[in-house]
Amino acid sequence: MLEIIAKKRDHGELTADEINDFIEGYTSGRIPDYQASALLMSIYLNGMNFNEASHLAMAMRDSGERLNWPAELGPLIDKHSTGGVGDKISLILAPVVAACGLTDPMIAGRGLGHTGGTLDKLESIPGFRVDLTATELHAALLKSKIVINGATGSLAPADKKLYALRDVTGTVASIPLIASSIMSKKLAAGINGLVMDVKCGQGAFMKQLPAAQELARTLVRIGQNAGVKMTAVITNMDAPLGLAIGNSLEVKEALAVLHGQGPKDIRQLTLALAAHMLVLGNKAKTFKQAYQRAGQTLNDGSAFAAFRQMVTVQGGDTRYVDRPELFPVSQQQVTITAAKSGYLAAIDSYQLGMAVVKMGGGRLIKGTPIKHQVGIVLAKKVSTAIQKGDLLATVHCEGIDDDLLIEIQNAFQITAAPVTAEPLILDTINS
Amino acid sequence: MLEIIAKKRDHGELTADEINDFIEGYTSGRIPDYQASALLMSIYLNGMNFNEASHLAMAMRDSGERLNWPAELGPLIDKHSTGGVGDKISLILAPVVAACGLTDPMIAGRGLGHTGGTLDKLESIPGFRVDLTATELHAALLKSKIVINGATGSLAPADKKLYALRDVTGTVASIPLIASSIMSKKLAAGINGLVMDVKCGQGAFMKQLPAAQELARTLVRIGQNAGVKMTAVITNMDAPLGLAIGNSLEVKEALAVLHGQGPKDIRQLTLALAAHMLVLGNKAKTFKQAYQRAGQTLNDGSAFAAFRQMVTVQGGDTRYVDRPELFPVSQQQVTITAAKSGYLAAIDSYQLGMAVVKMGGGRLIKGTPIKHQVGIVLAKKVSTAIQKGDLLATVHCEGIDDDLLIEIQNAFQITAAPVTAEPLILDTINS
Repeated sequence: MLEIIAKKRDHGELTADEINDFIEGYTSGRIPDYQASALLMSIYLNGMNFNEASHLAMAMRDSGERLNWPAELGPLIDKHSTGGVGDKISLILAPVVAACGLTDPMIAGRGLGHTGGTLDKLESIPGFRVDLTATELHAALLKSKIVINGATGSLAPADKKLYALRDVTGTVASIPLIASSIMSKKLAAGINGLVMDVKCGQGAFMKQLPAAQELARTLVRIGQNAGVKMTAVITNMDAPLGLAIGNSLEVKEALAVLHGQGPKDIRQLTLALAAHMLVLGNKAKTFKQAYQRAGQTLNDGSAFAAFRQMVTVQGGDTRYVDRPELFPVSQQQVTITAAKSGYLAAIDSYQLGMAVVKMGGGRLIKGTPIKHQVGIVLAKKVSTAIQKGDLLATVHCEGIDDDLLIEIQNAFQITAAPVTAEPLILDTINS
Repeated sequence: MLEIIAKKRDHGELTADEINDFIEGYTSGRIPDYQASALLMSIYLNGMNFNEASHLAMAMRDSGERLNWPAELGPLIDKHSTGGVGDKISLILAPVVAACGLTDPMIAGRGLGHTGGTLDKLESIPGFRVDLTATELHAALLKSKIVINGATGSLAPADKKLYALRDVTGTVASIPLIASSIMSKKLAAGINGLVMDVKCGQGAFMKQLPAAQELARTLVRIGQNAGVKMTAVITNMDAPLGLAIGNSLEVKEALAVLHGQGPKDIRQLTLALAAHMLVLGNKAKTFKQAYQRAGQTLNDGSAFAAFRQMVTVQGGDTRYVDRPELFPVSQQQVTITAAKSGYLAAIDSYQLGMAVVKMGGGRLIKGTPIKHQVGIVLAKKVSTAIQKGDLLATVHCEGIDDDLLIEIQNAFQITAAPVTAEPLILDTINS
């Protein structure tokens, strides 16, 4: 292990054998935390090339169980996002691709910090289970083609142990470590293709486009090296996605989009990601054909039907899907209005994400229970002309203090000069 | 701690408070090894400036006991070497400066790896104690002005703990970490001035002059920042110092030099270091005066008398000092002769140091007992003209295998062209 640390410390390239030794030794407990953290810091500061990151992802993939799927399911194509605010895309995307004939055993996460989590959102639906066993997953996929479930503890345990160490040693924000962590779990899940949504901007982990592009390229190369078809889309996360932020509020917005309504940006990004998935899964020849095909499923009710089917199979109460007005509403709704006229220049998604956490709709520490009904619903999107007194957002809360309301108010930046909205999709990387 | 790691990781300059927090927290066990090793690797890769290294040395100094000395002893001036092969300088230097009226409570170490240790050498003298208590140290200094003793466990315990971690995390070879480690113990010993002998060359830790100069400058600045007068001398460690390598063999060589005889390089380096010490201790106005005064003590017997007095006070059997032929001799003496004629171009001090370790005269693991009588005595120094068959060295051993003899033979490089010996003192740094 000392030789491996010294090699990376001295800017060397680690071999597959060296990386396997490290992961095997660290997972088994033979290599102590203090040596692992010295190596992690060396990787953080000296980097890893695509080959090293691939070896690391594959070593972590092989540290636990690897899922296998029956051939009859066809190619399994998944989507994964690096985490944003108001990002309810998965709830719509999975049914859309299912309605187009694709299978997706989507393994999703919980909210942590300012970003929400798909599992928390789905649990707004009473009865919805995100802890299906491997046997239940197989059965669910045969019935619904899609399933959205939590990771089982036995997938990539090395990643879990290493991530916990990175968290306490200042070595989280390393592109090869982030990329190999994401990919280890995706590779262990036995998928054939993956579309990555790499968020970029002030509400994302990657603030700048070059860093987001480097992460996207690393993810794509790791996947390709491991035999998984990859497309990475870099999307804007300066402002929240859609209008709703907060768990059941986002489910309701997703249902609107599944009915052919809802915010344009959510529809557009869902269809773009769906189109890439359909192309990877050989369900369409061109991106354009795939995009149109996906769009039809939102208009003809087939995506909604697929969502309803998924909820049924995963034990959720479909009455909430059919009548979203049944979702519990928070005790209090507070309106945020414009203090001056002008143009809405920016909506600080990090600030709003953290405000929802503070209202109890998210968590800073793993395992904390959350309130599904709290959140923020925007009334305006960036670049809109604003009159003083216009409604900017409604805060759904269970009591709120003035400081937090001021923080929310401050998240909306109004300027005198007109503003052009940034494009939603900043780049697409295939190799 | 996470903030401290992140700051150094991101090339920031740590404040005294941050460094104190780290050392206090790590020594008390509040900060775990894995966070300390992440910080150490950040320091290794991103460096520390003179101020940070000074704060680190002082924080480690303050982690345990600090020695205090009665004013009547006058200024306490010490010498410390970064470790070489055949380096018996301390055995001669301490008596020389004592004979010139200087006081030196020298804390010395044991051999580890290819370099020998002063304590091991002194223990060749039956009865010689290197574990004097603080009370005994005071009494000894009042009698002899000098004492050569081991470090007590309570001096700079943070350094001890941190060094053990560096050893297993690939973070030993960092100039600010090396310098602050050395200085923490020297500062805790309560000395007023320090002459550093920074070894440079193939048998030293620092192979190249620029690195040795950087270490020397760092040591000097740390000392000055902590109120200790400093001079650093960078000396050549391509070939062994003097002729003898091995514990009792080196004591015998030191005794010869104390009698005004012995190898010229040993006498020259001892007098240069002594002169710097005398200048720092205000016992001489100029280096030249100090050098001459020190030289007299080797010629008039006063340095030998000081050595004999130190041995008496530290419990050693002075019969061995008076009659060095009493030292036990190894069972076997094997001669190494020149395989061809030419010029002795190089003597690989690392190779010879390791050969002595393999013969049992040194150790790779702390605490291993050693054989004091084994070693190698050179017959020729670098640049000497050699005839085929000339004696190059005598190996004093207790049985030896042929492979090791070949290694020793290979340490002597003979070339057809004449060679000029490198200068012994490469640089002197005062600030």
